[in-house]
Amino acid sequence: MSDPNKGRILLSVTGFNPRRWHELLSVRREVVLEPAGEADPSIEYAVVWKQKPNVLSRLPNLKAVFSIGAGVDHLFADPGLPEVPIVRVVADNLTQYMTEYVCWRVLDHHRQGRLYRDQQKRKVWHEPPQPPAGAVSVGIMGLGNLGRAAAKVLLALGYTVKGWSRTGTRMDGVETFGGAGELDAFLAGTDILVVLLPLTPETTGIIDFELLSRLRRDNAIGGAVLINAGRGRLQKDADIARALDEGMLREASLDVFETEPLPLESPLWVHEKVFVTPHAAATSDPAHLAGPMLDQMDAFDRGEPLRNLVDREAGY
Amino acid sequence: MSDPNKGRILLSVTGFNPRRWHELLSVRREVVLEPAGEADPSIEYAVVWKQKPNVLSRLPNLKAVFSIGAGVDHLFADPGLPEVPIVRVVADNLTQYMTEYVCWRVLDHHRQGRLYRDQQKRKVWHEPPQPPAGAVSVGIMGLGNLGRAAAKVLLALGYTVKGWSRTGTRMDGVETFGGAGELDAFLAGTDILVVLLPLTPETTGIIDFELLSRLRRDNAIGGAVLINAGRGRLQKDADIARALDEGMLREASLDVFETEPLPLESPLWVHEKVFVTPHAAATSDPAHLAGPMLDQMDAFDRGEPLRNLVDREAGY
Repeated sequence: MSDPNKGRILLSVTGFNPRRWHELLSVRREVVLEPAGEADPSIEYAVVWKQKPNVLSRLPNLKAVFSIGAGVDHLFADPGLPEVPIVRVVADNLTQYMTEYVCWRVLDHHRQGRLYRDQQKRKVWHEPPQPPAGAVSVGIMGLGNLGRAAAKVLLALGYTVKGWSRTGTRMDGVETFGGAGELDAFLAGTDILVVLLPLTPETTGIIDFELLSRLRRDNAIGGAVLINAGRGRLQKDADIARALDEGMLREASLDVFETEPLPLESPLWVHEKVFVTPHAAATSDPAHLAGPMLDQMDAFDRGEPLRNLVDREAGY
Repeated sequence: MSDPNKGRILLSVTGFNPRRWHELLSVRREVVLEPAGEADPSIEYAVVWKQKPNVLSRLPNLKAVFSIGAGVDHLFADPGLPEVPIVRVVADNLTQYMTEYVCWRVLDHHRQGRLYRDQQKRKVWHEPPQPPAGAVSVGIMGLGNLGRAAAKVLLALGYTVKGWSRTGTRMDGVETFGGAGELDAFLAGTDILVVLLPLTPETTGIIDFELLSRLRRDNAIGGAVLINAGRGRLQKDADIARALDEGMLREASLDVFETEPLPLESPLWVHEKVFVTPHAAATSDPAHLAGPMLDQMDAFDRGEPLRNLVDREAGY
C-alpha cells in the first residue's frame, strides 16, 4: 500500500500508456499524473519520459527526477527542468536486452541472413564464402554500460572488437580510440559499426553520409554495416539511405529514427538492405525498474546518495 | 614441395570439388585421387568425405583415415572400411563457426526476427512483449566439443542452458541430463532445442514428431523452436513440417536435411516458419584444416599418437 507520509510521485510520460508504471509505483507512494494547480508541494519525485513541457517547474519540493529509459536528452529539451539530481535508468535488464539486440544484429549481418532468406525463396542451395567472426571487426561508438556489456559478449563470440568514445575509455580485449582526433583511425578499421552513443549537441547527426563513407568497405564481409541502437537523432535517415544506395554501406539495422514512429513515407521501411525495429532493442520493462526506483527514493529520503546520476554538464 | 619419401595420401570425396584440398595437402605429400590398380601400397593415409565405396579396402599400407567434417557416419557406411585409426576434424575454426550459427539462430527466434521482418513489410510500428534471455531455456542435445562451445557463449548471452547427452556429460552453469531415462525431463524444460548429436544407429531419426511434441510450448516465447545443425538423418523432415503445422513447434532453423541438397519439392523450402541454410552452419575451411592434418601424419610417422580419434564402438 502507498504510504501517505512519503512524498508523492509525479508520473509524466508521452508516447506510451503509463498504466503499468502507475500500478507498480503506487505500491509504495501516491502517484499523480498531473500536478495540482500552479505549484504542487506534495510531489517530491518525478518519473518521466518525454514529459509535458514545464510540468516539472511547478514542483517546489521536487528532490530528484528519474528518467525511464537510458537516454536523457528529452529531459534537457525541457526549458523548465529544475536544478535537481537526475537519475538515469540503468537496469541490468536494459543492458541485457541491448546486448542481445547488438549480438543478434551483428550475427545476422555477418552470417548473411538476408542472402540466405533470399536464396530460400528461390530454393537455391548454395554456400557463399563465410569468414569467421575473428576476421570481422565490430566497432562500438559509445563505451558506457551498454557498449561495454555488448563488447564483452561480442568478444566471447570471437569478433575483433574496437571501441570509440569521447574520452577514450579503455577496456580489456578491445582496441579503444578517443575523441575526434582518433575517429578516423577507428572508422577505417571498422566493418560493422554499432552506435550506442548518448545524444548530446556534439553527437546530434554524427552518423551522416560523410562518417559512413569512412568505414572499411574492402573487408571480409563485402562491405560496411551500420547498427544504430542508440538514439534516432544521432543519425541522418536520408544519409543512411544514400550510403546504402551508393555502396558506402552494405546493410543496416536500425532500431531508432529521426522521427518515431518511423513515418510511412520513409524510404527506410522498404529498403531491402535495411532491417527496421520499432525502438525495441531494449525495452524498459517496468516490472524490473519500478522496485529499484522506489528503493532509491527511500534511500535518498534517509540521506543516502543517489546512484546512476546524469552529468548535467556532459549532457548524459 | 611434396616429399617423395613420405607415404602418399589418397583424397577421396564426393559432393564437392576436392581441388583446394588437393592443393593444400600436396604441399608436403603426394596426393592421389584414385588408388593405382587392385592394391596400392604407396598410400599410407586417406583424407575422405563420403568416399567412394571400397576404395579404402585396396590400401594394404593404410595407417589412418582422416575425415573432413565432424560427422563420421559416412565412413561407417562403407563396408570396406579397414581396421585403422580414424581421425575426426576438430578445428577451432569449425567450433567457432558452429557457435556463431547456434547463437545467431537462437537470437533470431528469441528476438522475433520473423515477426519484425513481417511487420516491416507492412510498415507496422509495434513492439510485442519481449522476454529477456534468462527467461528462455535453450536445450542442447549433444555435449561434445561443439555443444559445449555453444553452451558457453549462450550462457554469456544470458540464456538458461540445459544439456542432454547419452552419457550425461556435466558442464558448469548447465543443467545436464543423461540417457533415455532423463530425456523427458530435459525436453519438458526446453523452449529452444539445439541438435548437435552425432549420427549413430541410436540417434538416427531421433528428432521425430513424438519427440518434438514433448518440448515446452507453454513458455515465454510463445512456443517451442527447433534448431538442427547436427546431421540431417537425425531428423524426420516430414515430422518437422507436421509439428510446425500442428503447433507443436513455433519455428525451426534447419541447416541439415535427410536428403541434401534439399529436394525442390520439399515443403520445408517454402514453409514460412522454417529458416533453411545449405549445410553451411560450420564450413570445413581447408585452409584451416590441411596444415594440422599434415602435422598429425608426420607425428604419427614419428611414432606419436593421433589426436581426436573416433571411437569405433560408440560410432562417433
